[in-house]
Amino acid sequence: MAELPSSIRKVIESFERLPGVGPKSAARLAFYLLATPKSFVEEFAQTILTMKATIKKCRQCFGVAEAEVCDICSDPKRNQRQICIVERALDVIAFERAGGFGGVYHVLGGVINPLDHVGPEDLTIEALLNRVEKLRQLEGVIEVVIATNPTMEGEATALYIKDQLNRRFGELVGKVIKITRIGSGLPMGADVEYADQATLSRALEGRREL
Amino acid sequence: MAELPSSIRKVIESFERLPGVGPKSAARLAFYLLATPKSFVEEFAQTILTMKATIKKCRQCFGVAEAEVCDICSDPKRNQRQICIVERALDVIAFERAGGFGGVYHVLGGVINPLDHVGPEDLTIEALLNRVEKLRQLEGVIEVVIATNPTMEGEATALYIKDQLNRRFGELVGKVIKITRIGSGLPMGADVEYADQATLSRALEGRREL
Repeated sequence: MAELPSSIRKVIESFERLPGVGPKSAARLAFYLLATPKSFVEEFAQTILTMKATIKKCRQCFGVAEAEVCDICSDPKRNQRQICIVERALDVIAFERAGGFGGVYHVLGGVINPLDHVGPEDLTIEALLNRVEKLRQLEGVIEVVIATNPTMEGEATALYIKDQLNRRFGELVGKVIKITRIGSGLPMGADVEYADQATLSRALEGRREL
Repeated sequence: MAELPSSIRKVIESFERLPGVGPKSAARLAFYLLATPKSFVEEFAQTILTMKATIKKCRQCFGVAEAEVCDICSDPKRNQRQICIVERALDVIAFERAGGFGGVYHVLGGVINPLDHVGPEDLTIEALLNRVEKLRQLEGVIEVVIATNPTMEGEATALYIKDQLNRRFGELVGKVIKITRIGSGLPMGADVEYADQATLSRALEGRREL
């Protein structure tokens, strides 16, 4: 069997390291770039490098930002006292696309996952507590909406954050500081017949009066 | 809805232009690169640019090459008189992975497809005819294995190539110049019950004595 030139093999290996790209897609992507005009490929590489050079983590919410503080955190129309906690910066985009949320975000940077050696100290939980502490010194109710994924790790992380808020703010929780969890149940357009048990139980638990 | 920083949007748009990458995967890839060490991203961009700078089209077969002529065409152990015609350079890799083919290749660069405005003159068919012409001046049988995909366009292109060979080499075809087409039928591991009609008809037509 003839070997691929090493420069192509390296590109395929690079693509394979990206999430959701298997060996076959990686090869297809590499050969696509080979057949594509040089100007597009150079632009492609350049946009990636530019992004990497210009995007920082927002100092307040750890989402993506072009300045020290991101557009959402610095928007005066946003309610700074309503903080939606998400796992990843990409989740912020998902909520923004859905629309309807007028508060701000807090990006954890992942979830607690002992198997992957991710502990609470690897996430931005301490920064969240300090953020709430600062808000508490001003008047008004604070709402912390925990929007980690409804997976085992996401649920455990949600409980851990609730615990930490309770430990730090004690009796303020439930009065000045409201902790909520995003709803879980059947996704829109789903079919009860095909839903798994855990989702159905959650849907029942989360039933609301019509 | 808050907008994404433009440098991220540009990366997402670049990824979306790649084959098989939809808007969601494109966003996931962009955010993956954002969260990844700068050194990896720089290496990623660099390997792509290096590939683009070092890889040429083989002068003989139009496959990928680091020199004027590719490793397969310049391999003295390969039978230069057995030419497997494929649509894309990636198809060469597929055949090489499968192993067992000791000849050389000819990459068409696509298939005849009027809807996409791809005519025979956009492919390397003329170069193929010249290649066969040169081989014909030496002693021995030439085999042209047409391995375009068994799609409508691939079949039409196969017939067109056969026609052109007939027109150019007349009565040599079938004697000195053998034209073959790769087998088509049920793929290994498939199930007759679930096969489509066209595949089943082809499998019957292509039956062989055991």
